[in-house]
Amino acid sequence: MHQTHEARRDALRARLVEHELDAMLVTDLRNIRYLTGFTGSNAALLVHSAEDKRSVFCTDGRYEQQAAAEVGQLEQVIERQCGSALTRRAAADRERFRRLGFESQHVSVDTYDALLEQAEGVELRRAPGLVERLRMVKDESEIEAIRMACAAADRALAEVIEQGEVRAGMTERQIARELESRMMDNGAAGPAFETIVAAGAHSAIPHHRPTDAELCTGDLVKIDFGALVDGYHSDMTRMLVVGPPADWQRELYQLVRTAQAAGCQAALGGAELAAVDRAAREVIERAGYGERFLHGLGHGVGLDVHEAPRLAKEATGTLAAGMTVTVEPGVYLADRGGVRIEDTLAVREDGNEVLTLSTKELVTV
Amino acid sequence: MHQTHEARRDALRARLVEHELDAMLVTDLRNIRYLTGFTGSNAALLVHSAEDKRSVFCTDGRYEQQAAAEVGQLEQVIERQCGSALTRRAAADRERFRRLGFESQHVSVDTYDALLEQAEGVELRRAPGLVERLRMVKDESEIEAIRMACAAADRALAEVIEQGEVRAGMTERQIARELESRMMDNGAAGPAFETIVAAGAHSAIPHHRPTDAELCTGDLVKIDFGALVDGYHSDMTRMLVVGPPADWQRELYQLVRTAQAAGCQAALGGAELAAVDRAAREVIERAGYGERFLHGLGHGVGLDVHEAPRLAKEATGTLAAGMTVTVEPGVYLADRGGVRIEDTLAVREDGNEVLTLSTKELVTV
Repeated sequence: MHQTHEARRDALRARLVEHELDAMLVTDLRNIRYLTGFTGSNAALLVHSAEDKRSVFCTDGRYEQQAAAEVGQLEQVIERQCGSALTRRAAADRERFRRLGFESQHVSVDTYDALLEQAEGVELRRAPGLVERLRMVKDESEIEAIRMACAAADRALAEVIEQGEVRAGMTERQIARELESRMMDNGAAGPAFETIVAAGAHSAIPHHRPTDAELCTGDLVKIDFGALVDGYHSDMTRMLVVGPPADWQRELYQLVRTAQAAGCQAALGGAELAAVDRAAREVIERAGYGERFLHGLGHGVGLDVHEAPRLAKEATGTLAAGMTVTVEPGVYLADRGGVRIEDTLAVREDGNEVLTLSTKELVTV
Repeated sequence: MHQTHEARRDALRARLVEHELDAMLVTDLRNIRYLTGFTGSNAALLVHSAEDKRSVFCTDGRYEQQAAAEVGQLEQVIERQCGSALTRRAAADRERFRRLGFESQHVSVDTYDALLEQAEGVELRRAPGLVERLRMVKDESEIEAIRMACAAADRALAEVIEQGEVRAGMTERQIARELESRMMDNGAAGPAFETIVAAGAHSAIPHHRPTDAELCTGDLVKIDFGALVDGYHSDMTRMLVVGPPADWQRELYQLVRTAQAAGCQAALGGAELAAVDRAAREVIERAGYGERFLHGLGHGVGLDVHEAPRLAKEATGTLAAGMTVTVEPGVYLADRGGVRIEDTLAVREDGNEVLTLSTKELVTV
């Protein structure tokens, strides 16, 4: 993995040259993990544009051993205020660190002030999103981790259905817990986010937190969940119905399923992000439910469960091979019920690869 | 609970008057939860100094129903860019919102720029930590939630020990999972943070992530974990030893236990934060291990697992009744083993109340 991280730092260094930066101060922990493999909770990284061996890593005493193991190839500084320490370090060598980029999308106004105090002779320049843009396009090892996370979720869902754990009388919370436990049985380090199980009218709430409400016959059950494997997330939503579906449930489901298929079909390399959103949204708008599709179509998935790019009306930019995104249209009828269907997929040179493989039939339990 | 939240906003409003702010834009989600009860993942809150009914809450369409239920007493705006939306709202009524505080410790440099664009006629003023300072002193309902979180962790630990699940041959990861599962059986919504189980030489790593390494006879086992109840965290570290402890293990344990007791004894209302740290640190320094105590003595615990105040050498300020803090000295001997003992306690008018009740004997399993 050290080679992978070095290659990622090389890619960042090429961007720094383009942006006329001598170096970049990376303070976001996900970005640091991406560039070094470090998984602790406090760190900063100084990446020099000229050569990797000028890069410096900083963490505090709690992580000294871990950093030696995970980030062994970089020079290490042990200090608690990591960003300030590395800015001071840059200022001490200001001939080589004249223009220092920082992550202005993450660094708070107060932290920025603290960095400025250490930056004598160094110009701090806003350089938002440089690492995030690299992270948008995954390499095969990243897609493999996401695939494993998707598989853990697929297996967990299949098991709870096979074992009859989704049924009238079970609570939303019980099902959520069972899913999380089974994801871990299937190789996940944990859930990717707080598992959503929303039954009956709760399914009309896009982000519902599981309660002690019991499932009843006739309920639509929306399950939105994912697994975490090697720091990478999966994200999937599937719908079940307790007992035979009512006509309105079947119709709503088919509508969203058609929209979701249209979204998946449009999610190709080169496609405008807004056009992918539109492909699915138009299906729902034509059916008269445009106002009830309350969110964007999808988002990137990787070291963060929500990351760039966003598939949304107002998004700009295009998809590219290697991006992993969700496609998740939904229609929510307040006090009645809602349907969302969501896959995680990887954009490929010649199409895309759906990584969440659970059936998209409306499952009756 | 609505009354509690209104009372908290009242307390914030009094601070705003002191700071000569007309209003405060709150964007940190924990702070928003504290002031409103809202538990979703995207929101902002505008609190006006003059009267609570001028306060405005914003979230996006996914949380419209949830916000109506949780924050029903406040005017609501539904928009995705919540901070910008409420700044625009303030600017539209600029006679009443001339000086608008914002959370400069949380708001990023780029977000600040976006707020500035909406703030025509409104002066955005840095106002870091106003809500965090209120949050430092807990009310009884908050201490009760933390007490329940501590109890869930206590019971989980007792169960895994009683059931013989900490023994040679079990892996760190298995024990961590078992603890997390049993905390949830005992009322937790989830773990407070990633459970640490560190056996043998791993115990010398302050923040070790559980591996598939099996426990061996003679291992010290460090378990640092907590539960989440109603949004509040607990935090506790206990040590076990597999088989009879060696002399060095017993001695190291006794040293840290003495230091921890000294820290607890010093954690009283009115005590200087640095003096509490010193009380424990001196015990370890006198024994010649000062360099191997790699972190501060403790931290506040509440809606965040790490929050103000910090008990550390360089901390300024004093403890007060109602604060809930950890006391957690540790000594780490690289490649051999380490000992940390940690309680969560509530500072009271007449002393303090230890909320984590598991035995502080070195448990032999």
